[in-house]
Amino acid sequence: MTTVKIGIVGLGRLGQGHAKNLAFNIPNCELYGACSPVVSELEWAQRALGVTKTYTDYADMVADPKIEAIFIASPSGFHCQQIKLAMTYGKHVFSEKPIGLDLAEIEETLAVIAAHPQQIFMLGFMRRYDESYQYAKGLVEAGELGELTLIRSYGIDPSEGLESFVKFAGASNSGGLFADMSIHDIDLVRWFTNQEVATVWAIGKNAAYPELDGVGELETGAAMLQLTDKTMGILVAGRNCQHGYHVETELIGTKGMLRIAQIPEKNLVTVMNQDGVVRPCSQNFPERFKQAFINETKEFVRCILAKEQPKVTGNDGLQATKVAIACQTSYEGQTLVKVEL
Amino acid sequence: MTTVKIGIVGLGRLGQGHAKNLAFNIPNCELYGACSPVVSELEWAQRALGVTKTYTDYADMVADPKIEAIFIASPSGFHCQQIKLAMTYGKHVFSEKPIGLDLAEIEETLAVIAAHPQQIFMLGFMRRYDESYQYAKGLVEAGELGELTLIRSYGIDPSEGLESFVKFAGASNSGGLFADMSIHDIDLVRWFTNQEVATVWAIGKNAAYPELDGVGELETGAAMLQLTDKTMGILVAGRNCQHGYHVETELIGTKGMLRIAQIPEKNLVTVMNQDGVVRPCSQNFPERFKQAFINETKEFVRCILAKEQPKVTGNDGLQATKVAIACQTSYEGQTLVKVEL
Amino acid sequence: MTTVKIGIVGLGRLGQGHAKNLAFNIPNCELYGACSPVVSELEWAQRALGVTKTYTDYADMVADPKIEAIFIASPSGFHCQQIKLAMTYGKHVFSEKPIGLDLAEIEETLAVIAAHPQQIFMLGFMRRYDESYQYAKGLVEAGELGELTLIRSYGIDPSEGLESFVKFAGASNSGGLFADMSIHDIDLVRWFTNQEVATVWAIGKNAAYPELDGVGELETGAAMLQLTDKTMGILVAGRNCQHGYHVETELIGTKGMLRIAQIPEKNLVTVMNQDGVVRPCSQNFPERFKQAFINETKEFVRCILAKEQPKVTGNDGLQATKVAIACQTSYEGQTLVKVEL
Amino acid sequence: MTTVKIGIVGLGRLGQGHAKNLAFNIPNCELYGACSPVVSELEWAQRALGVTKTYTDYADMVADPKIEAIFIASPSGFHCQQIKLAMTYGKHVFSEKPIGLDLAEIEETLAVIAAHPQQIFMLGFMRRYDESYQYAKGLVEAGELGELTLIRSYGIDPSEGLESFVKFAGASNSGGLFADMSIHDIDLVRWFTNQEVATVWAIGKNAAYPELDGVGELETGAAMLQLTDKTMGILVAGRNCQHGYHVETELIGTKGMLRIAQIPEKNLVTVMNQDGVVRPCSQNFPERFKQAFINETKEFVRCILAKEQPKVTGNDGLQATKVAIACQTSYEGQTLVKVEL
Repeated sequence: MTTVKIGIVGLGRLGQGHAKNLAFNIPNCELYGACSPVVSELEWAQRALGVTKTYTDYADMVADPKIEAIFIASPSGFHCQQIKLAMTYGKHVFSEKPIGLDLAEIEETLAVIAAHPQQIFMLGFMRRYDESYQYAKGLVEAGELGELTLIRSYGIDPSEGLESFVKFAGASNSGGLFADMSIHDIDLVRWFTNQEVATVWAIGKNAAYPELDGVGELETGAAMLQLTDKTMGILVAGRNCQHGYHVETELIGTKGMLRIAQIPEKNLVTVMNQDGVVRPCSQNFPERFKQAFINETKEFVRCILAKEQPKVTGNDGLQATKVAIACQTSYEGQTLVKVEL
Repeated sequence: MTTVKIGIVGLGRLGQGHAKNLAFNIPNCELYGACSPVVSELEWAQRALGVTKTYTDYADMVADPKIEAIFIASPSGFHCQQIKLAMTYGKHVFSEKPIGLDLAEIEETLAVIAAHPQQIFMLGFMRRYDESYQYAKGLVEAGELGELTLIRSYGIDPSEGLESFVKFAGASNSGGLFADMSIHDIDLVRWFTNQEVATVWAIGKNAAYPELDGVGELETGAAMLQLTDKTMGILVAGRNCQHGYHVETELIGTKGMLRIAQIPEKNLVTVMNQDGVVRPCSQNFPERFKQAFINETKEFVRCILAKEQPKVTGNDGLQATKVAIACQTSYEGQTLVKVEL
Repeated sequence: MTTVKIGIVGLGRLGQGHAKNLAFNIPNCELYGACSPVVSELEWAQRALGVTKTYTDYADMVADPKIEAIFIASPSGFHCQQIKLAMTYGKHVFSEKPIGLDLAEIEETLAVIAAHPQQIFMLGFMRRYDESYQYAKGLVEAGELGELTLIRSYGIDPSEGLESFVKFAGASNSGGLFADMSIHDIDLVRWFTNQEVATVWAIGKNAAYPELDGVGELETGAAMLQLTDKTMGILVAGRNCQHGYHVETELIGTKGMLRIAQIPEKNLVTVMNQDGVVRPCSQNFPERFKQAFINETKEFVRCILAKEQPKVTGNDGLQATKVAIACQTSYEGQTLVKVEL
Repeated sequence: MTTVKIGIVGLGRLGQGHAKNLAFNIPNCELYGACSPVVSELEWAQRALGVTKTYTDYADMVADPKIEAIFIASPSGFHCQQIKLAMTYGKHVFSEKPIGLDLAEIEETLAVIAAHPQQIFMLGFMRRYDESYQYAKGLVEAGELGELTLIRSYGIDPSEGLESFVKFAGASNSGGLFADMSIHDIDLVRWFTNQEVATVWAIGKNAAYPELDGVGELETGAAMLQLTDKTMGILVAGRNCQHGYHVETELIGTKGMLRIAQIPEKNLVTVMNQDGVVRPCSQNFPERFKQAFINETKEFVRCILAKEQPKVTGNDGLQATKVAIACQTSYEGQTLVKVEL
């Protein structure tokens, strides 16, 4: 059996999770290289993951002929240039979301990707690879719900991160709540409906931390989307979920409705105590999407070996970013915004 | 113990339910009179409910000095004039929702009500008297959810009525999906938040019966509301619920979330069979709100005896109608609509 | 419409609930008389319920020719003699469970009942009249579960009463956990299966209050039952439920399974907070079976007016008591016990 | 990093699952060898799993010095002798449950294991490694439920296998329902309570296939267990679950109750359609315990590398088998059976 040699860039919280998967949980691949400006992270990669080679300069890693594929888990602002460089060097590329922050730069990057059709490119919309989302997609495609008329998707981060977010909010450059949190939900809307978003209205409210108003950030926001075929979309995003990490998606069709994680059940345990009957919940995205992260990476490696492009494309990244920006524009301008197709 | 003598007008499906409650399930009241243009309905009221007196002319019933209170369950177009007449004759009045269809006429009616402050007036927003909604309201007022930031409310009618609705859609004069279905949800938004609706955007899609496009009706619609303090509201209304009658309300606050009937459970039974694990569901509003209809009528009688105005006022009817009309206007005009306060 | 004049005996906690229902919630009946040795309870009945006549001596009430039916909610030790006396005086009788504590006395009482076939006799196995149990029974009779092979039924009282129970345990003469708590579950086993119990084994454990061992009482007990056709029965009874009042019944059949109240949901509300996703629970039997108590009394009155014997018979009381006694015997003797049919 | 070379014996349905895990999903191990009398299975292991060496004779595999650990997934009747041989050859051993069918032979095997304390021995009670069971065990050990008083555990196989089971029932030599199905539940009872089983009573009923009576097999059975400290145990086992694979465990303690998989949810999806609100269910043990199988094997490899004995011991296998045999004896003899400690 062939093994794909992979180099990862970015060893922050998310990058470390990916690196561990590449080292231990994905068949047919070897985590050969790791790149980070932080030397202690590189030492960790060698010691804990058995990485062969480390780089402080990304240009060195992409130039290494031993490496066949690049796994990008660096800060969002670097994604576009790192994708382009890796593509130019003939590497397969997996990039975490978002593909980029600036529409022009994303389009330029898509052009580079398009110019290298033999190389695999995949974007990290991992929710599509979660077993529950896969099961739901299967039911939709089998026609079990009839024609979809409405999709509602929530992404609400646990409260425990909120205080720290507020502290650094002015400096975070998160792109705003919709770009930061809803981008996965927007991708799901497009994936389930096979439609593009035409018009959006976004609103929000800061109640626990009204000071967020001053820095243009939101605790909780909502957006309503009208898709090209009039299918309706509803997004709720937030940073203040007391019960953990609430990612939920609802599909309404002419033949039935379906909900994914209407309760974000941690496991199959129900506790009955003085609080009532309690379902413990997933507490964060690494817990909730642990298996989805593994599945998407297995798919990336499978696609490389099978010489087959994955179903998540660069264009998916472009469209989701467009809609997220439209939501932010709508929220700031207090007006309906049409999304340019 | 005193007994309140009541006369009911309107003995259609909803009226018959009210009449049975008044006759059998409400202490301290007597269903003395019944008014309907349909003679067979009056005969039924005498035979099955033991009503003492029947009237084919509403003017005769309100003029009857034996009757202390009028219960209005006639078609919506008659509500305003019947309320005004009853008020003028010194009667207490319970009116089914909506209080009226035309804003000017509603305001005129409110003026008449205001001119008779000794007489009880109550509007039939029965959901407020459902035990689950009462329990939720109690938690909100006790601060269990912190400050509310978002409220989502669904009202989706069972599919079994859809075909017939489509057949008569052109002639139904329902006022549109939002006036017809969402008015209860709008009342809940106002009740839970103690805020008014400032701006709305409403959209919709006809998929099972595209011919509804031609008559300005909707199978499924959604509206997003911005309230005066920026609290967010999301409404979904529909006429095509396969699993029964789906009325659900969600509250998101800074300290927690709460859902009323996220599954519209029929009772406490769970069936496990070849379909999986199944919760049977409420099939229609008389089933789901059976006890709420009784509770609101008990409250009406209690208020009469205690000489105390109920918490559901005529103004609640006016404001909910304003918002429903704004949603319809927004849907038709494909634009944001500000609600005049 | 005819009205049945009823006299109630026993105005303790359960009796008061029945008295309120008879006074306010049951059509076609009048709570005419009330009997209690406690004068303040009689005063309450006059003042709050509008009872016409009160008695401190039961013999006076049953002799009153105005009274057509007797409602027995006195302590269990009085049931048999009160039933017999009322029957002898030509009254219809509703008796709370258990029909009696001593098998010979119960059989004697059944003979008296049998000697007055024109008078209605009904026993208070109210769970049969709960809407969820009714719904389940309907599915069983429609064959939805196939042939039943196993039934499991739990009755666990809320913890809040346990400390007080322990304090008075030696003096309580409860008849033991199985007679006190499982008798309803035993009735359900017989009702759902249409079979009698042939053999039982009962065990128990005191952990929170080991001192209960000394007085022959149990915190938590379990019994396994083999029915005449080999259908299996499992009972769990207890006095230490932290989440409220847990009454649950499971049916396993050849075509499916069914559970009634696998979560004793208080209402349709789900709360999501720092504890996780929480379903609030019913806290006690008056809450859980509020409507069942009304339904059984409506049925009693309906049967009187329709001259029709109810489906809950005196024999149901006899058989359930037999099985409860067999469980207690088994627990004490640490052995299998055959129930005499 | 070190890699453990493993040889597997038995490539039936369960063995193939283990072999795939060893080949692809377990870090730090290599599936080096495979043994089966079926040549096509060995060819599959070479082709699909990349196994280096295959054996038709188990004696050859255990003698191979390259192999450090043996993974036994052969028919139950071979377990004891294969464990003993592998131990004698100095190998670490993982054996599927049951450890054996005959108590004397199991005790002899335990003696051999005890004579090789440097070699790891682990038994395949995989449920202990399921995340939900692990989470529950953690809560119990943290005292969240107080002292346990009752544990109920169900193991019911999907109906789809029943017809074929009935066909071959006479020849299957399953050891009976309790040895075949309840052995995992018995292990859970011992694991959660840290107690042994003292006395059992087991009953059963054949309703869908009464012909099973003739061959001493059961569709559905139940057993009640009294543990040494009076903790109660309830087991239900069956072969006729219409909704899939129902494995459920309930713990009742003085401070709370807990249920693992009271609904055997397949994933996080809820479907709402004409059947009601439906949770799709796990359909079989490979689906339900997919991750648990991986986790137990990871633990086996970790124990080898860490030179640490796993918490599942040979004695766990012996005790569970004793109790299963006692249940079968009780069922056949229609009597209480004491388990020899």
